Amino acid sequence: MSDALPPEFSLIAKYFRPLAGPGSLDLRDDAALLTPPPGRDLVLTADAMVAGVHFLADDPPDLIGRKLLRVNLSDLAAKGAEPLGYLMTVSTPRDTPESWFAGFSAGLAQDQVEFGVGLLGGDTTSTPGPISLSLTMIGHVAPGRAVHRFGARDGDGIWVTGTIGDGALGLAVATGRLSDPSGFLVGRYRLPQPRVGLPIGGVASAGMDVSDGLAQDLGHICRASGLAAVIEAALVPLSPQARAAGPEWLETCLTGGDDYELLLSVPPAREGALRAAAAACGVAVTRIGGFHAGAPRVTVVGADGESLALAKGGWSHF
Amino acid sequence: MSDALPPEFSLIAKYFRPLAGPGSLDLRDDAALLTPPPGRDLVLTADAMVAGVHFLADDPPDLIGRKLLRVNLSDLAAKGAEPLGYLMTVSTPRDTPESWFAGFSAGLAQDQVEFGVGLLGGDTTSTPGPISLSLTMIGHVAPGRAVHRFGARDGDGIWVTGTIGDGALGLAVATGRLSDPSGFLVGRYRLPQPRVGLPIGGVASAGMDVSDGLAQDLGHICRASGLAAVIEAALVPLSPQARAAGPEWLETCLTGGDDYELLLSVPPAREGALRAAAAACGVAVTRIGGFHAGAPRVTVVGADGESLALAKGGWSHF
Repeated sequence: MSDALPPEFSLIAKYFRPLAGPGSLDLRDDAALLTPPPGRDLVLTADAMVAGVHFLADDPPDLIGRKLLRVNLSDLAAKGAEPLGYLMTVSTPRDTPESWFAGFSAGLAQDQVEFGVGLLGGDTTSTPGPISLSLTMIGHVAPGRAVHRFGARDGDGIWVTGTIGDGALGLAVATGRLSDPSGFLVGRYRLPQPRVGLPIGGVASAGMDVSDGLAQDLGHICRASGLAAVIEAALVPLSPQARAAGPEWLETCLTGGDDYELLLSVPPAREGALRAAAAACGVAVTRIGGFHAGAPRVTVVGADGESLALAKGGWSHF
Repeated sequence: MSDALPPEFSLIAKYFRPLAGPGSLDLRDDAALLTPPPGRDLVLTADAMVAGVHFLADDPPDLIGRKLLRVNLSDLAAKGAEPLGYLMTVSTPRDTPESWFAGFSAGLAQDQVEFGVGLLGGDTTSTPGPISLSLTMIGHVAPGRAVHRFGARDGDGIWVTGTIGDGALGLAVATGRLSDPSGFLVGRYRLPQPRVGLPIGGVASAGMDVSDGLAQDLGHICRASGLAAVIEAALVPLSPQARAAGPEWLETCLTGGDDYELLLSVPPAREGALRAAAAACGVAVTRIGGFHAGAPRVTVVGADGESLALAKGGWSHF
């Protein structure tokens, strides 16, 4: 018999093997081998991204690859963990052009350098449906220092990194519902900035990344911590482009998804530590409200002191 | 705002939270936390399964869940590793009935008990396409004891566990190309038996699981180890049902996929150790040929001593 290999193997060799990191066995085996850093806990997270749901079919493939990596890095960042490497599955229609794989892998290669991670393993298959991707990210954290959704306490401040709402507005721009000639908002939608490296362990009492919308994700912390949350809309940091969209887009900013900023509960005594850590990383942090004893509930107070009624609590991928 | 959660969260709570294992944080967080077993290496593997490619759309959902778990457990078995837990992504069309999730999760629950693993985390999303699943399995192995595709040596025997070809014949039965009133072959296609627990570390010089067909997968070991392989068709263990299919199905058995048996290179001095380990686990092992110095190439010798010409080297999911 011939030892010629089917196209799946040449795709792997050409586009994915160059991404292989230590422990990947050069992607020539069925599984990766990894010696975990001694005395550290592992942090593991997995996300799926499907064309037509999580990205647009005509998005540049390098940005799809980078976003896939970044949304998972953002989950690690929310735990205060450092990345080790990742496994990935890629299911593509048979007529996917080779240029798509070239762009997708180039984007991954670029971000692997930026974030110091390597590909450990995974799977490539065909699909009769849209491009379907999954990525499992492995990271590590000092034992007992991982940040959770639970743990916020009465009196803690509610903090966010960066600016809120750009991702949701970027989707509105990409789908023709909003105009932004600068391209900033679409850029924020397509290429989130995971806050890995921000040392929140021992600083934040609770936290998560904002992926499904600020209001909904804050609700998760409220439920997990058994607290009520009040945020002041006027304190929520908006980019100049988000402000330019006008007040009718405020609700989208507060409930839209794809921010990938960190949402943190920080005791007053540790606010200085947070500010110092953020300044050292070049990341903006803003206090937008506080947690209070009470039934789990998120209240958004407007500039007039009245609660805003939000039509939806956030974005669901269902 | 209301704290009602969208359907994604109720699905997770109802069907996936009962599967959550230690370290999963009850699936209430963005990531899992796992303290790795001290002094052990981690083994990581990921596979995707897409409806219409890897399983049939009308396959019972419990068997889909169990197969997804088992194909990944089989990759761990091929390294001689023990499973720790898994992350999973589940992308389903919006009209997927709740009964599908109930069956899928029930199948996973059943096999979690059988194989001693728990769900660590993952993601559920919708898709405009077919059901798309991915699973990343984490296991552990003693340092230096993992079995690889490379490492086979001239003179080593080629061994397989169980019987070969049942999975490919089962697919033929399921698609109406072959008859098997016993249901055995379809059962082997839908529910492979991963050989986890077979202690091949220190016994096999190389190995992998047979997922893309015996001939093609043996070619992988040949290339990785720089050796030629000769197998005798008459020695390849076939089930009674595979024999009953007749000699015209032999090539399907040798080149079809979905066996999930182990394909091992074993030095003659360790054959006794392999037989003893297999007997202790209740697993049949059979010597089907040997590795020899030479250019990487798989030769299948028929009963008449002539080489068989195989039309295809194995199954590709592309």
